[in-house]
Amino acid sequence: MQQLTDTADRVPRTERGRKTLRKLLDAAAAEFAESGFHEASISGITKRAGVALGTFYTYYDSKDAIFRALVGDMSEAVGAAARDAIKPDMDPLAVEQAALLAFLEFAAEHKEVYRIIDEAEFVDPDSYRAHYERIADRIEQRLKAGGGSEDLRADLGEPEAWAVMGINVFLGLRYAIWAKDGDPDAATVAAAANRLLRIGIAGPDSD
Amino acid sequence: MQQLTDTADRVPRTERGRKTLRKLLDAAAAEFAESGFHEASISGITKRAGVALGTFYTYYDSKDAIFRALVGDMSEAVGAAARDAIKPDMDPLAVEQAALLAFLEFAAEHKEVYRIIDEAEFVDPDSYRAHYERIADRIEQRLKAGGGSEDLRADLGEPEAWAVMGINVFLGLRYAIWAKDGDPDAATVAAAANRLLRIGIAGPDSD
Repeated sequence: MQQLTDTADRVPRTERGRKTLRKLLDAAAAEFAESGFHEASISGITKRAGVALGTFYTYYDSKDAIFRALVGDMSEAVGAAARDAIKPDMDPLAVEQAALLAFLEFAAEHKEVYRIIDEAEFVDPDSYRAHYERIADRIEQRLKAGGGSEDLRADLGEPEAWAVMGINVFLGLRYAIWAKDGDPDAATVAAAANRLLRIGIAGPDSD
Repeated sequence: MQQLTDTADRVPRTERGRKTLRKLLDAAAAEFAESGFHEASISGITKRAGVALGTFYTYYDSKDAIFRALVGDMSEAVGAAARDAIKPDMDPLAVEQAALLAFLEFAAEHKEVYRIIDEAEFVDPDSYRAHYERIADRIEQRLKAGGGSEDLRADLGEPEAWAVMGINVFLGLRYAIWAKDGDPDAATVAAAANRLLRIGIAGPDSD
């Protein structure tokens, strides 16, 4: 994952410092994903990153600190993947489809994201809740902005935002993390979810 | 939670044995929810249950074993809550609304269910995955049965089932576990989700 220089306890001022920080966060993602928080170690992280143990403490005070930084970094990366996929000329439903497709592709490439965000529920509950509240807020803003344009219903709010987020998280769990041979591809899954958002699941004869 | 006598390693044959087993599972739910798996202890469970330490080993071999049994028990209880709320004369969309409402009420009364199921991702990944696959299967069966009746679209399948499950899980997370003052009540939340399923989120002018 690219980005973010403000996830360290001490923000690096040089390009070299930013690269080292990125290496530490990527190494932490691999270490926490493979071993889980409790078994993971700072020395395991520095070994993976190819940096000296002392270098770790230039940026973070503890295993807890880098875990918290990593959750923030991943949460930001998830948001960035969606934002990058959204184009200015898309209608509100196309925006939701593009955001979900970007998320499915991101999760397939960064399967560790589920395990690490999910473990935050136990290691760092505030970050866990902040992650979902931030995403739901963003979706709610999109739904409300779209409601004004008459592409979306005007009565959408927080329940619909959490519902859309739940759809995205569980389709990612099923089709990116627990992918099976013969599954539909990510674009097909995103299209199915979008059809649900567009017309619901009721049949033509339903009232 | 009521039910289930087959969650013990050794199934009790007497009514008294079944009651002791129920006490152990309820105590385990409280212990794991409060302390998390790693900090929880068998003696903590038996103290809460008011039974002797030796009694624990009549039913389970280890902390892992009772955790696994508890995940199965809770998974079953979640399913039972939904099943009990479904009446034979409901149309397929009313079934989904009743199932979600029952789940929201269940989660509000048993807030520990999220923490314990979620911790299974780390402690007992097979049970975690089995829990969600079982629920998605049940929803998919309902959606496909409803498709035949023309109350639901005929093209619904696994993606829509995981989407519906995601809606339910995240609305439970937001409105049962992270409930706030001023929130809409469970029936209102379930109605909003059902409206999304019934007509989608598109406006009247959308194609």
